Amino acid sequence: MSDSSTSASWSRRGFLRAVGVSGGAGTMFAAMGALGLAPTAEAAGATAAFSAPSASDFTLTGRSAASVVILGGGIAGLISAYELGKAGYRCTILEPRSRTGGRNFTARGGTTETDVFGRKQTAAFSEGQYMNCGPARLAQWMVTLDYCRELRVPIQVFTNTNADAFIYNESAGMTKPERYRSAKSDVYGYVSELLAKATSQGALDSELTSEDKERLITFLQGWGQLDSTSLRYTDSGNRGYSPYPGAAGTPGTSLGPVPGLSEVFASGVGRYFSFEFGFDQAMLMFQPVGGMDQIPKALTKAIGAEKVRLGCQATKITELPDGVTVEYTDAHGHARAISADYLIAAMPPHLLAKLPHNLGPSVQTGLQAITPASASKIGLEYKSRWWETDYQIYGGITETDLDLTHVWHPSYDFHGDRGVLIGYYNYGQNADMYGKMTPAEREARAITLGTKIYGPKYRTEFASSFSQSWRYIPHIEGAWHNTPDGGPDAPVLKPLAHPTGRTYFAGDWLSYMDAWQHGAITSARSAVTQLHTRQLAAAV
Amino acid sequence: MSDSSTSASWSRRGFLRAVGVSGGAGTMFAAMGALGLAPTAEAAGATAAFSAPSASDFTLTGRSAASVVILGGGIAGLISAYELGKAGYRCTILEPRSRTGGRNFTARGGTTETDVFGRKQTAAFSEGQYMNCGPARLAQWMVTLDYCRELRVPIQVFTNTNADAFIYNESAGMTKPERYRSAKSDVYGYVSELLAKATSQGALDSELTSEDKERLITFLQGWGQLDSTSLRYTDSGNRGYSPYPGAAGTPGTSLGPVPGLSEVFASGVGRYFSFEFGFDQAMLMFQPVGGMDQIPKALTKAIGAEKVRLGCQATKITELPDGVTVEYTDAHGHARAISADYLIAAMPPHLLAKLPHNLGPSVQTGLQAITPASASKIGLEYKSRWWETDYQIYGGITETDLDLTHVWHPSYDFHGDRGVLIGYYNYGQNADMYGKMTPAEREARAITLGTKIYGPKYRTEFASSFSQSWRYIPHIEGAWHNTPDGGPDAPVLKPLAHPTGRTYFAGDWLSYMDAWQHGAITSARSAVTQLHTRQLAAAV
Repeated sequence: MSDSSTSASWSRRGFLRAVGVSGGAGTMFAAMGALGLAPTAEAAGATAAFSAPSASDFTLTGRSAASVVILGGGIAGLISAYELGKAGYRCTILEPRSRTGGRNFTARGGTTETDVFGRKQTAAFSEGQYMNCGPARLAQWMVTLDYCRELRVPIQVFTNTNADAFIYNESAGMTKPERYRSAKSDVYGYVSELLAKATSQGALDSELTSEDKERLITFLQGWGQLDSTSLRYTDSGNRGYSPYPGAAGTPGTSLGPVPGLSEVFASGVGRYFSFEFGFDQAMLMFQPVGGMDQIPKALTKAIGAEKVRLGCQATKITELPDGVTVEYTDAHGHARAISADYLIAAMPPHLLAKLPHNLGPSVQTGLQAITPASASKIGLEYKSRWWETDYQIYGGITETDLDLTHVWHPSYDFHGDRGVLIGYYNYGQNADMYGKMTPAEREARAITLGTKIYGPKYRTEFASSFSQSWRYIPHIEGAWHNTPDGGPDAPVLKPLAHPTGRTYFAGDWLSYMDAWQHGAITSARSAVTQLHTRQLAAAV
Repeated sequence: MSDSSTSASWSRRGFLRAVGVSGGAGTMFAAMGALGLAPTAEAAGATAAFSAPSASDFTLTGRSAASVVILGGGIAGLISAYELGKAGYRCTILEPRSRTGGRNFTARGGTTETDVFGRKQTAAFSEGQYMNCGPARLAQWMVTLDYCRELRVPIQVFTNTNADAFIYNESAGMTKPERYRSAKSDVYGYVSELLAKATSQGALDSELTSEDKERLITFLQGWGQLDSTSLRYTDSGNRGYSPYPGAAGTPGTSLGPVPGLSEVFASGVGRYFSFEFGFDQAMLMFQPVGGMDQIPKALTKAIGAEKVRLGCQATKITELPDGVTVEYTDAHGHARAISADYLIAAMPPHLLAKLPHNLGPSVQTGLQAITPASASKIGLEYKSRWWETDYQIYGGITETDLDLTHVWHPSYDFHGDRGVLIGYYNYGQNADMYGKMTPAEREARAITLGTKIYGPKYRTEFASSFSQSWRYIPHIEGAWHNTPDGGPDAPVLKPLAHPTGRTYFAGDWLSYMDAWQHGAITSARSAVTQLHTRQLAAAV
């Protein structure tokens, strides 16, 4: 993203070109770093350095941009074409689905999807309502946000954490949901009380100086809302009120007696708390306004829609000494072939492994080291936003030990007339179980279980659903991946991460951020940099 | 807000009217509750029950809506007029400032303000940029949000908490800021380690069953990211990375060695953590799109701008047996008077206490029991959103022990070309100190101190500022209030919260939620209900 050369003086450019002539792009980039022109890891901070290929890279080399065929119009494929296109590479994307984006897929009214069992759904959501079936959130440090900035895709907060969302652990005997704010107050209150007690009784004297102890207890008292004299957790406004404080006569009514310590830990509510500290999940999180697919739409437009061939499924890859040929079936079922100087394979590795190719056994072994994982979501449109009006829940995630796993409240159109809840977002066996059901069965189960948490409006206000189980979606067949230890630097993946031929590989599965667009993008940047470096260094 | 009568059947209405005739609105509302028509505290959940006055309340009583003069066009005054207007009351608001909203005040390019020292500022913010000088955030349970829904004021997330925002405690020896995510990881990590140790060593055996202990340690291990065998806090991805994980070769680089326990507690970072659990501050929080003053603008429009007399300052209140007369100075400096059946005094109590009136010594004592408190803010417009591009901070609050206290990152226009930071938001003596400075002095100090946290761009990218110190703003002279123990139910305030004459009082200062619009609104609703009840019960 950072094209630092735009700020370079002409004399610096001259030097860089000279370096570029003799040393290729890698040397050039290193030299730029030494001159303070390229972003260093330290300056870039959040994201590893990347310099987009530029047409000027070729100016004094006598070389020129090459042709590239890209398998897959998901995020990795689109980013590859977009970044290579900045330097004049002639890219062609072959995408077997009818739209770009891959798992970045937003369902709206009229969106259709047919799974591998042949079950076709058409979303009946109202105007303006949508669900993100795939990726749905962006952390602030993720490079995905830089592309939103560059491509002018507006963003808004994704409500990943909400004190007023619910926790519902049926297996722990909960008969009604508890709000996060109450659960946190209780867990943190008792943690504070216990640690304050152990500390003041001297149990940690070997660990703590007297100054440490004093500071720790001061912290615990405030953080855990402990009674200032007894250092016990008794009651706390942090739990919430019903009703909340207001005018005279309404000082705020407690939600009831504070549950005992054993009850609080037996409820298991605390196990959901660490989620919000995750380096990839901590708020603030973001989403594009109007649906995650605004990103692939903007990328496709920037690349040029004419460079994307939809409905085209690769059938064979043949790498030659001077290029690559891909045979494929086009949208009309006709057999076609395309040749190019390079190939970027940005498609699911387990599907790529099924294609005939001559990329060698080590590539095949690498591809087979990655296996697909399952995830499912259902969007439930409601005729009213009863979660806002009746429960004052404006976004956020309700956690449950039901097979729904997560229930998401929408992060857009607050106070609107209608809204789409994610009725389940689950993984593994739960995801497969729902995926094997018919859409009607999924809907029925999601509503029945959701009613346990939210009450009858979960059924009576329901309008329509759309559900997606990625394991059973043609041409994708997976939500994310099981990757070997060592991630993209695992030895078995070296032939993919650092290929020696004219075929490069890209995808979230070839990064340390599997299941995230950030992973797909950084992997694509790596492929682009390797390809461009090779092309700059190639014999004329 | 809940006008439950709209769903009442006609036979029920007939019954209610009969009750209304004999018992007044209070009895009517109680009867509605018994019939399940009025919201009960349990049904309303977050907010105490309120039934807006309705013209139909008068249908069979032979009575009619009265005239009401309202002193102050802030939120309490506007809500009073808005809700009474629903039943046909003829309201007139006298507002001494040139706009409604009171402390709900948004500064944009061209906004002017002159303080009590005669120092006039004109904001030079760019198109679309603004700062909320007064209230700036709404909790989900606050009734303010219900008015946003009713008045169709769009809302968006207010970024009250951000893992990527900074903490900077200069007095603890910090030479550079630390991100919340790192600070939380360390504090929670050590709290977990210490409590796990004390627990497993038996120090809490008198408090915990063996089952409690097991559950507690399982919780601590996950929550505090403890090493699974040693139960020690060593390193944690939750601290963040630079750069973050990406493609092959970029597994994520730790931020450096984890600081020791003593260092972590000595840094004082933990003292900021409880803020985000507060019943009034826990995320998710919200703000109107385009500025908090969208609320008073919408209310003023709904009331009818012709009912609001701007630039009109009350000079004397005279309550008579059959009404109230207010003398005032109009926008042209002319002495005027207005008479009405009732008065609602929705102006700052300490300024009201200075007006000549015949409301009695107990009213005066009550007014004098409330004293004003100070708060100041400065908005700093920048020519770029360097906090997003350089630090990946998209909103949220940076906490500091400098006299700036809080620095707010904007919650709107992410990725825009420019942005307005709140460079300080402070209270008490700090607020008074800045308030007494000239605007240029405030700006200079805010930038100098901010540069310690954020580096040179805090100065070099700066464009213009606007600052507000509520203690020194004419006709308001306070940010919020010091209230007696017992809040609005303190005996000294009974003559204001439950007046016996024709003058009612409203304002956040007369609620349990001082400084919040929710407090002003619930107080106004209380005044409206009392006035309406009296009018319904009055002799024809």
